[in-house]
Amino acid sequence: MSIFYLPQLQKGVSHYELSEEESKHCIKVLRMQTGAELELINGIGLQAHAVLKVAHVKKSIVEILALELHPPTQNIHIALAPTKNAERLEWFVEKATELGMTKLSFIRCERSERKQLNLARLEKIAIAAIKQSKRFYLPQIFALDSFDEFVQKYPNGYIGHCYDGPKIGLKSLDNNRPFLIGPEGDFTQKEIDLALIQHYEAVDMSSYRLRTETAALLATTALIR
Amino acid sequence: MSIFYLPQLQKGVSHYELSEEESKHCIKVLRMQTGAELELINGIGLQAHAVLKVAHVKKSIVEILALELHPPTQNIHIALAPTKNAERLEWFVEKATELGMTKLSFIRCERSERKQLNLARLEKIAIAAIKQSKRFYLPQIFALDSFDEFVQKYPNGYIGHCYDGPKIGLKSLDNNRPFLIGPEGDFTQKEIDLALIQHYEAVDMSSYRLRTETAALLATTALIR
Repeated sequence: MSIFYLPQLQKGVSHYELSEEESKHCIKVLRMQTGAELELINGIGLQAHAVLKVAHVKKSIVEILALELHPPTQNIHIALAPTKNAERLEWFVEKATELGMTKLSFIRCERSERKQLNLARLEKIAIAAIKQSKRFYLPQIFALDSFDEFVQKYPNGYIGHCYDGPKIGLKSLDNNRPFLIGPEGDFTQKEIDLALIQHYEAVDMSSYRLRTETAALLATTALIR
Repeated sequence: MSIFYLPQLQKGVSHYELSEEESKHCIKVLRMQTGAELELINGIGLQAHAVLKVAHVKKSIVEILALELHPPTQNIHIALAPTKNAERLEWFVEKATELGMTKLSFIRCERSERKQLNLARLEKIAIAAIKQSKRFYLPQIFALDSFDEFVQKYPNGYIGHCYDGPKIGLKSLDNNRPFLIGPEGDFTQKEIDLALIQHYEAVDMSSYRLRTETAALLATTALIR
């Protein structure tokens, strides 16, 4: 059954108007007609079985038939320095969302090459990915934070870097801790020291030199139970 | 130092001509001049430190200064039904190569949507990825095999599918066994039965519905020690 994203979906309301985008997808792309059944999700656990009451290309109306609330999933929090190439970042958002990431933070590092982000576009990709993968929770995507602010706000995390020093393996991580991935040129020693003060643990990522988005996806798979 | 791919690199030969493509990259893109030092790899473990003797845009000549043979890495064998979308497949080849995949097989399944593959293009992507990630072994990429042929040739593997039944977790796999990932519409029950006869074990991939290339990358990360 086709899935539509309806963030305002809540208990106790029987009829909703689909957004212009979802209406267009429903009527123009899927060619659904009045009486067709569909599924709605609000991205925070609620799923509805619904029926199309008014088929309109810009403002379709749906009626709720049944509601189900799905419990929250494990916390998978990835923080990364945005890649220079926007497409690589978008790819990461799609894949990590499919796999179960619940929070995505962006950090401004000394060696970051990208300082601007199109968060609306990234959210759109995440919405498409939760529909595709049948998840009920949309990852929260946060605006850019400075490195210092981030490690203070979220202490006790994991950090992947290429410097020498004690590192733990990827196979036994605690999925409740954030995982920090650096920019193309790696973190600076100063940044690593700041993270260590906030009780971050360094993780041995790979024998090879990974691109930022590859390391971030590897971190996501390592946090999944 | 810049890395160039030279498959004919071997012990006992002191001078080589770079391929037209690598010469162009060396002279036109990197603007290297006679006397510049560079690194060569043959994709099967040999690494050379070399110097540019003749800077020519189509046939540069290099002289070997030192050679090192790197031991083979762990065996990571992924077999998948090619995705309908070629870009998704190319993306998988890049990422899995960075992470350490050593063999890539393609299988023709009953529900496969793509029957043709541009193996030369996939190899090019893998070559770029081993240079990027500083690997010394190029993954072997095999032409399409039928499902039956594959499971007979490579028994005792892992298989990721969405049917019910006993499944093992992703966290404790033996990296010496091939991992089979199905097409967009999943394997057929008949294919799964054929795999079970060849002592394949089903693996519990995710609570979510993963795209083929996402599942294949997750399988790659699960096989890495």
